[in-house]
Amino acid sequence: MGKGKPIITLTTDFGLRDPYVASMKGVILTLCPKAVVIDITHDIPKFNVRIGALVLAQAAPWFPEGTIHVGVVDPGVGTARRAIVAVSRRYVFVGPDNGLLMLAAMRDGLRAVYAVENKDVMLEHVSRTFHGRDIFAPVAARLASGLDPSEVGPEITDYVVPGFARPKLEGQRAVGEVMYIDGFGNVITNLPEEFLTRIGIENGAELYVRLGSRRLRLKLRSAYGEATPGELLAIIDSWGLLEIAKNLGSAAEELAIRVGEPVEVAPAP
Amino acid sequence: MGKGKPIITLTTDFGLRDPYVASMKGVILTLCPKAVVIDITHDIPKFNVRIGALVLAQAAPWFPEGTIHVGVVDPGVGTARRAIVAVSRRYVFVGPDNGLLMLAAMRDGLRAVYAVENKDVMLEHVSRTFHGRDIFAPVAARLASGLDPSEVGPEITDYVVPGFARPKLEGQRAVGEVMYIDGFGNVITNLPEEFLTRIGIENGAELYVRLGSRRLRLKLRSAYGEATPGELLAIIDSWGLLEIAKNLGSAAEELAIRVGEPVEVAPAP
Amino acid sequence: MGKGKPIITLTTDFGLRDPYVASMKGVILTLCPKAVVIDITHDIPKFNVRIGALVLAQAAPWFPEGTIHVGVVDPGVGTARRAIVAVSRRYVFVGPDNGLLMLAAMRDGLRAVYAVENKDVMLEHVSRTFHGRDIFAPVAARLASGLDPSEVGPEITDYVVPGFARPKLEGQRAVGEVMYIDGFGNVITNLPEEFLTRIGIENGAELYVRLGSRRLRLKLRSAYGEATPGELLAIIDSWGLLEIAKNLGSAAEELAIRVGEPVEVAPAP
Repeated sequence: MGKGKPIITLTTDFGLRDPYVASMKGVILTLCPKAVVIDITHDIPKFNVRIGALVLAQAAPWFPEGTIHVGVVDPGVGTARRAIVAVSRRYVFVGPDNGLLMLAAMRDGLRAVYAVENKDVMLEHVSRTFHGRDIFAPVAARLASGLDPSEVGPEITDYVVPGFARPKLEGQRAVGEVMYIDGFGNVITNLPEEFLTRIGIENGAELYVRLGSRRLRLKLRSAYGEATPGELLAIIDSWGLLEIAKNLGSAAEELAIRVGEPVEVAPAP
Repeated sequence: MGKGKPIITLTTDFGLRDPYVASMKGVILTLCPKAVVIDITHDIPKFNVRIGALVLAQAAPWFPEGTIHVGVVDPGVGTARRAIVAVSRRYVFVGPDNGLLMLAAMRDGLRAVYAVENKDVMLEHVSRTFHGRDIFAPVAARLASGLDPSEVGPEITDYVVPGFARPKLEGQRAVGEVMYIDGFGNVITNLPEEFLTRIGIENGAELYVRLGSRRLRLKLRSAYGEATPGELLAIIDSWGLLEIAKNLGSAAEELAIRVGEPVEVAPAP
Repeated sequence: MGKGKPIITLTTDFGLRDPYVASMKGVILTLCPKAVVIDITHDIPKFNVRIGALVLAQAAPWFPEGTIHVGVVDPGVGTARRAIVAVSRRYVFVGPDNGLLMLAAMRDGLRAVYAVENKDVMLEHVSRTFHGRDIFAPVAARLASGLDPSEVGPEITDYVVPGFARPKLEGQRAVGEVMYIDGFGNVITNLPEEFLTRIGIENGAELYVRLGSRRLRLKLRSAYGEATPGELLAIIDSWGLLEIAKNLGSAAEELAIRVGEPVEVAPAP
C-alpha cells in the first residue's frame, strides 16, 4: 500500500438516508481499523449498473495506487450472480459480477478477476439481501489488511463485461450517444476530443449537433464563461468528452434531454 | 479504545446543506485531533426521534467496540430536557434524553446513564439552539480522548425510554406495524423472523398480509431477484425482520404505505 | 500543523451525485496521503457564491488552527478570474477569486492573498472546466504537505471582496435583510444580537418584525421549545443573529420568505 493508509472507496445506489452505508463502514473499520473510507457517491440511480459503472470509472483513476474500490449497485443480490474481486494495474475492485466494476478496471488495465467463494473472507452470517455489508465490505477490509486477492476464490474469465455503445466516425460526422447528465445539467456524450479533431472541429469552431430530433448550431468553447449567461455551448469537458452545456444553467433541462439519446456532430461551414 | 483510533459516529436530522454538521466535526477535531468521524446519516426526518432511534439502532452494532455514537434529533433543544451519556456493553452514546439513543443502547446491553451537567465538558459558551455543537460534540470528543463517562455528571435512572410497539402472536397470526420505509421503498415491519417460523411460514411458503386495508397474498422469498421484475414479495431482510418489497421497484409507492400502519400476517393454505 | 494530521475541508456546489467531489479527494490523498478531508457541504445552490461564502464563514471557525479550507463555487471557471490562496490568522483558504473565501478569511483576520500562478503546484494537465480537481485540490494538498502559501504565486491586493449588505440602526429600529434560510426553514437575518440589545429588546420581550410586506408581533425566546408547537418566534440563534423560526416547523414555508428580503425590527410596547 506504500506510504499512506489503505483507502477504500464506496460507490452505491443506497442513498445516505438509511443505515446501509454506515453499516458497511462499521464492518470495514471493525476488520481494518486503519482503513480510510471515502465515499465516491451513494446516489447512483437505484439499480442503474450502467451509470454506476460510468461514475466509478470517472472517479477511480484519481485515487492513489493501491486504493480498493467497492461498488454496490446490485439488482441481482442473493441470486446466482457472483461476487468478484477484479485486480487492475493500480487498483483492486470489489463488488457484484454485473459489469459495474469492469469499465473502471478495464480502463486501468485489467490483470485478473476472482470469484469470491471463500466463506472465511465474508461475515459469518451472510444475508441474501445485503451483500454490501456481509460480503463486499469484509472482503475489502481484508484486502486492505493485506489479504492477497487470489485468496478470495478461483480466478474466472467469464465475468460480465458491460456493453457500452462505442462512438464512431462516419465520414465527416461523429456519431454517439448521451452517456451521462450531471448535477449541473451538463449533457456528457461519449464522443472523445480526438474524434472532433479528426473531423476538423477545433476550439472556437462552429458545429452542428443533432441530439435526438433537435438540431443545434453551437460554438466549441474552451470555458463555460466564454459564452454569455444562458447561452448553449459545446465544450470538451474534464472527462475529455464532448459536452453540451449552458453557461450558468442546465442544458439538459432546456433541451429536455435524457441519457441514451443519439448524438451526431459535424463541422458547420 | 484498543488498536484503532477513536471512532465517533453522527446521526442527526440536520441535513448536509447547512454548516451545522461541519461545525460539529470541527469542534470534535479541535478537541480530539485523532478522532475518526463517520456519518451514519443526517437525513433523519426533522424532529422524528422515533426514526432516528431506529436508524441508529440498525447501524450502531456494526461498529467496533469502543465507538462513540452521537445522536442529535432534538426538538427540545434548550428546554429542560437533559443531555445524557449512555454506556452500553460495547459503546458509548451521547445525545438528548428523549429516547433517541436508548433503543440502540438497550439492544447492546445498557450499563449506565449519566446526565451531562459538568460545564467543563461543554464548550465555554453554550447556545440554547445548537447543543450538537456546544455540548454533544465536545462531550464525545472528550470521551474519545479518555474522559470517563461518569465525569460528565450524576448517574440517572429516570431517562426517557422510547415507546415502540411490540409485535405479538395471536394464534396463527403475527400482528405488528410498519416500522420503516427505506430509500428503495422497501416496507420494513417490526415482525421478526422467529414469529414467522412459529406460525409455520418458511422460505417459499405463501402468506396472507393485511397492510392497513390492503390484502395481499405473497410468497416468502429468500432473495429479491427470485421474484419477477416488478413483482411484490415478502422477505426476511438484512435486519432480520419481515419486509414487503417489490423486485426492482418500490413497494411503498405501489401500495401507498406509510410508517405506523398496522400489519397482520398469516400462512396462506 | 501542530499535533494532529492536516485537515482539508471542502465547500462546493457540486452535489454528491457526480464523480467530481470524489475526484478532488482522490487528488488530495494522492499528493498528501496523511490529509484528513472533511466535507463542509456540497449542496451550495449552483453558482451561488454569496450563499457559499456565508456557509463557509459559519463552519470554518469551528475547525482547528491550521485547517485548509477549499471552496469551489466557481461560475467563472476557465475564464480570466484568478485562483487564490488567502492566509488568515488561523487558516488557509484555497479557491477562486470571486469573493467566496473572503468573508470567512476576513472574519478570521486576513493576512495575505496570493494568486496561484506557479504551474508546479497544479496538476500537469489543467482542464478549463474543473479547477477544483486540477488546481484547488493539488494546491491544498501541497499546502497540507508543508508548501508555503507564498510559493503558489505573487501576493495580490486587488482580490474580490464580497459585497454583503450591512445591517444598520435607525433610531429604535434595526434594519437588515434575510441572509440565509436553513434546512429547518429557520429564517436567519443579518441582525446581530448586539443591535437588539441596543434598541432594548431582551429575551422575553415582544418585538415588531417587518419582513417584506408581512408584519409580525413575536416574542424573543431563548429556546425553540419555549414556544408552543407551530408557533412563530424570534430567537438569537447559534450564529449570534436574529432568527425568525417556527417551533417544530418551517417559518420560511409558513411566511413564504426568500433570501434577500428586507427585515426591520423594533420593540413592541
